[in-house]
Amino acid sequence: MTITILFGGSSYEHEVSIVSAITMKKVLKKSTVRFIFVDAMRDFYLIENDRMKSSFFASGEYKKSKKLILKKTGFFSKSIFGSKAVDTDVLLNLIHGRDGEDGKIAALLSFYSVLFISPRTEASVLSYNKLYTKSFARSVGVQTIPYEHLSREDERKIEMGYPVIVKPVRLGSSIGLSVVRSMAELDYALDVAFEFDSDVIIEPFVEDVKEYNLAGAWTGKWELSMVEEPQKDGFLDFEKKYMDFSRDSQIREASISNTLKQEIQESFKKIYNPLFHGSIVRCDFFEVEGEVYLNEINPVPGSMANYLFSDFEDMFVRLSSSLPSEENIVIDYQYINSIQSAKGKA
Amino acid sequence: MTITILFGGSSYEHEVSIVSAITMKKVLKKSTVRFIFVDAMRDFYLIENDRMKSSFFASGEYKKSKKLILKKTGFFSKSIFGSKAVDTDVLLNLIHGRDGEDGKIAALLSFYSVLFISPRTEASVLSYNKLYTKSFARSVGVQTIPYEHLSREDERKIEMGYPVIVKPVRLGSSIGLSVVRSMAELDYALDVAFEFDSDVIIEPFVEDVKEYNLAGAWTGKWELSMVEEPQKDGFLDFEKKYMDFSRDSQIREASISNTLKQEIQESFKKIYNPLFHGSIVRCDFFEVEGEVYLNEINPVPGSMANYLFSDFEDMFVRLSSSLPSEENIVIDYQYINSIQSAKGKA
Repeated sequence: MTITILFGGSSYEHEVSIVSAITMKKVLKKSTVRFIFVDAMRDFYLIENDRMKSSFFASGEYKKSKKLILKKTGFFSKSIFGSKAVDTDVLLNLIHGRDGEDGKIAALLSFYSVLFISPRTEASVLSYNKLYTKSFARSVGVQTIPYEHLSREDERKIEMGYPVIVKPVRLGSSIGLSVVRSMAELDYALDVAFEFDSDVIIEPFVEDVKEYNLAGAWTGKWELSMVEEPQKDGFLDFEKKYMDFSRDSQIREASISNTLKQEIQESFKKIYNPLFHGSIVRCDFFEVEGEVYLNEINPVPGSMANYLFSDFEDMFVRLSSSLPSEENIVIDYQYINSIQSAKGKA
Repeated sequence: MTITILFGGSSYEHEVSIVSAITMKKVLKKSTVRFIFVDAMRDFYLIENDRMKSSFFASGEYKKSKKLILKKTGFFSKSIFGSKAVDTDVLLNLIHGRDGEDGKIAALLSFYSVLFISPRTEASVLSYNKLYTKSFARSVGVQTIPYEHLSREDERKIEMGYPVIVKPVRLGSSIGLSVVRSMAELDYALDVAFEFDSDVIIEPFVEDVKEYNLAGAWTGKWELSMVEEPQKDGFLDFEKKYMDFSRDSQIREASISNTLKQEIQESFKKIYNPLFHGSIVRCDFFEVEGEVYLNEINPVPGSMANYLFSDFEDMFVRLSSSLPSEENIVIDYQYINSIQSAKGKA
């Protein structure tokens, strides 16, 4: 099977997407893998497999690669005899942050009838924006952490007690995120978060909260990953982040009770079904006093959360053959014909 | 000024979009107007102005028109000397229903840095899906009608009393919508609605409810239309619908109290700001016992609700010069360079 990975994008997470894509090259061992890079200008390039090193992109060398355009059914390069398709069975959207997680790439691929793995546009919009995630989770019966919301022009005043965590509403990978331990620190944290977004979300920060991650997909049956209790030594810095996006070896499952595990799994299913069909997403949960809360949905998780699955590639292949596609709409101009008749113009 | 109108689409509302586009030709008198048709197969065609008649599309004659492709900055036709841009100052998304109102076209145009009038992807997703509209409206302090939600696989049982109105969650133009007066009629109404969507929303049907429509935009200042009390003689059939999408003469303002008018205007502003910047939308409100409720948001209203404005074209031009665009993200590969250094590979 041939899998084409789309990565990069006009996104604050452009660079970690490169790291993710390089990791997938190691993970997808049995398949033929191709790479399409979306640069900062949103030009598409076909990248040879042996050029998949981060310096190739950082140096700008990638610009010598073959340029592609997206048209109906897929990506094409120009050749002397017209245009030549990049042959693939399926496309994986591996663009983190803007473009990839906000629904734009999903919209492009749906519009042009490309088979792809990614949340669709509706699912992307609801999971990319943390405010919408909250109300969506509530609507399907999954608890979330209480929060406050501030826009750039709002008075910088919050009701909840400290410490709190301040996050831009629309970003992932902890960009623009701060833990604020007193009112004196709030202003600076908001300045940082508003650098990246017009809106921020503020939640209570619970020291040493239990966090559990679970990824999964529906491939005609549920394929849920192991539950991981991620290690949190201090806060995310760039090395920790790099580790997150380059992980390719399987984890050890969290040692939790069966009841807790089932609750996490049930919450995942409520979130995923049916909105996220066609995607592999990772949900991050908190456990507080025995209750499970959704922290966030990662619509395009770092390195596709491959390390959480015991058979990632096989699951990926199964998902590829059970992808949703839009219903076909027959347009027969009956309506216009009736108007024409009614007007005596038929 | 040159305005290019994008219409058609792979949508149940494809045909009314053609009617809307023909109407806009009459409305935009002072501008140069061009037309790009998206056919059922999602191919793009440049349509000469004198071919803008519904029979040109219904007959399939449009296929002889110049084919276009969408690339960075806009639409292009092939010429002997490469490709030629369709010159325009702004593009209007006039595709009703799927593609146009679900955020796909907005995503394509944002991705390719085209200046366009339409709700952006996030705003489209929230207004296209009536369930999300409800929770969004609530979150900005606008009341909506109570409702129940059924999915295709749910038991066909509702709690509320009859009569009710059954609507597909994601469509406009009253497609798939029924008024149900007793339990015996529910099954058929659900069959009809589920033809068009996997989810339906059910609301109490209030005979002779007062309905008021208001359209508007933010062009650096609020530009709110008159308030109309639409005429409802019986239910929408195809002639009535045709009238709605072909309206081009100004209405008479509803005779309502100043208090009610202000409440409607304030509700509109809460919905519009800031999510809908860059668009002209129409909101339909109900008045029940002196209270204002949002019924629905029309992200791409029929004939752009031109008939509600006293100076539609001037407002349109003002909006064209105050369109939002995505923030530029600088990608400097600092992060990858730091990893390289840390690894001793710099």
